[in-house]
Amino acid sequence: MGTGAGGDVTKQFDLIAEQSMVEYLKRFSAFTLVSEEAGLQRIGPKPEGFIIMDPIDGSTNVSHGISFACIAIAFASELLFTSIEAAVVLDLFSGTCYYATNGTGAFKDRQRIQPADSTSDKPSLVGVDDKFPQTHVKSNQLKSNTSRIQYTRHFGANALELCYVADGSLDGFVDLRGVFRGTDLAAPALILKEAGATLLNPEGSAITGPCTNDARYAYVAARDTEFSTHLLALIGKTKSS
Amino acid sequence: MGTGAGGDVTKQFDLIAEQSMVEYLKRFSAFTLVSEEAGLQRIGPKPEGFIIMDPIDGSTNVSHGISFACIAIAFASELLFTSIEAAVVLDLFSGTCYYATNGTGAFKDRQRIQPADSTSDKPSLVGVDDKFPQTHVKSNQLKSNTSRIQYTRHFGANALELCYVADGSLDGFVDLRGVFRGTDLAAPALILKEAGATLLNPEGSAITGPCTNDARYAYVAARDTEFSTHLLALIGKTKSS
Repeated sequence: MGTGAGGDVTKQFDLIAEQSMVEYLKRFSAFTLVSEEAGLQRIGPKPEGFIIMDPIDGSTNVSHGISFACIAIAFASELLFTSIEAAVVLDLFSGTCYYATNGTGAFKDRQRIQPADSTSDKPSLVGVDDKFPQTHVKSNQLKSNTSRIQYTRHFGANALELCYVADGSLDGFVDLRGVFRGTDLAAPALILKEAGATLLNPEGSAITGPCTNDARYAYVAARDTEFSTHLLALIGKTKSS
Repeated sequence: MGTGAGGDVTKQFDLIAEQSMVEYLKRFSAFTLVSEEAGLQRIGPKPEGFIIMDPIDGSTNVSHGISFACIAIAFASELLFTSIEAAVVLDLFSGTCYYATNGTGAFKDRQRIQPADSTSDKPSLVGVDDKFPQTHVKSNQLKSNTSRIQYTRHFGANALELCYVADGSLDGFVDLRGVFRGTDLAAPALILKEAGATLLNPEGSAITGPCTNDARYAYVAARDTEFSTHLLALIGKTKSS
């Protein structure tokens, strides 16, 4: 156990997962690895782009014996959200695989995915990560009397929960903590975009910054612009555009 | 689609699940069925006790394509929490089966289960169902600065989440809504008791009332008395005993 490049306490299985994946990827190409545990690491002679990896999202679940966690991997030409070319989020327990490449749509086990239909009469279901008291107060508003959110959830692996927005299982996902790493958001960001869902910061702007360990993000994902506006209004912000 | 005996909107798959189970159980014995959908129903010539059933807990998840739901069934000599003799909670997607009989302990797939160890250095993980704004305000306190809860979860099938307290996956589970039916709480209540976990109402008393559709409960489940006291204090109540 130690402290990873991202500053979190590293669990033994996080390290093993990352080392196994690096050993595997080494056989195919040269790249610069960007990860929670190892930081920035050149693999092979002439690195061609960046592999951005969260080897286990949902470590707390795993350490409690709860079967909800994923691996998130993205490939990017530059370490920016605007330069992500491919992404995979793999549910470690069900084996369900979400993936996307830039400009060609998002998929779940070979089936094209899209966000929830706004005309459905199903009750709205929104994921919320509000670990800290101060963000909890704000996300409290999500359950106000003017809210169209009937149910909230928190499964405990945000990258996978963002894929639930991409495939229509959730109508939205709100994380106002401002601590989620750029490296962990990279893969689900492309999957959301390619599925046609929205991903904004709490001020209502697109997330365009660096997808590195040091960059930390608060974000609001939604099935469409209209629901995104609703979520942003509930947490007390108005959309700038 | 209609309105079940418990007052909720009945989903098609709830009805099908219940009907299938009744057809199956009929072959073995005579009993009085108590369920969300059908209310009270005599099955066979001389009913011997009550089968209390929630055919699908987690219907909202299922209707959104989320693989977290369970069946909860209890057998009781009288429709009281003090008269429950056997209980089963079956995870519909993983197939994991939690069960208990009165006085002989609780099990998960043939392995005896027990709640989380209070001396563990793992961060505390507590499930919270606070759908309504008014209960949300109260459960807000769970994330106060004096709280020992590091993480919260809500997977969306309370009977199964209560089994997570019984087997140590969660340290506690808090549902202050006061709408959870006695029929739905019956099975997890026995599993918690037999595992050695606590289940109290928000005033800190044992739940001893009727396990019927009409009886609705708020409850606080915890790994032990000490953690239970901590949870009750956080939501602004002190334990009476």
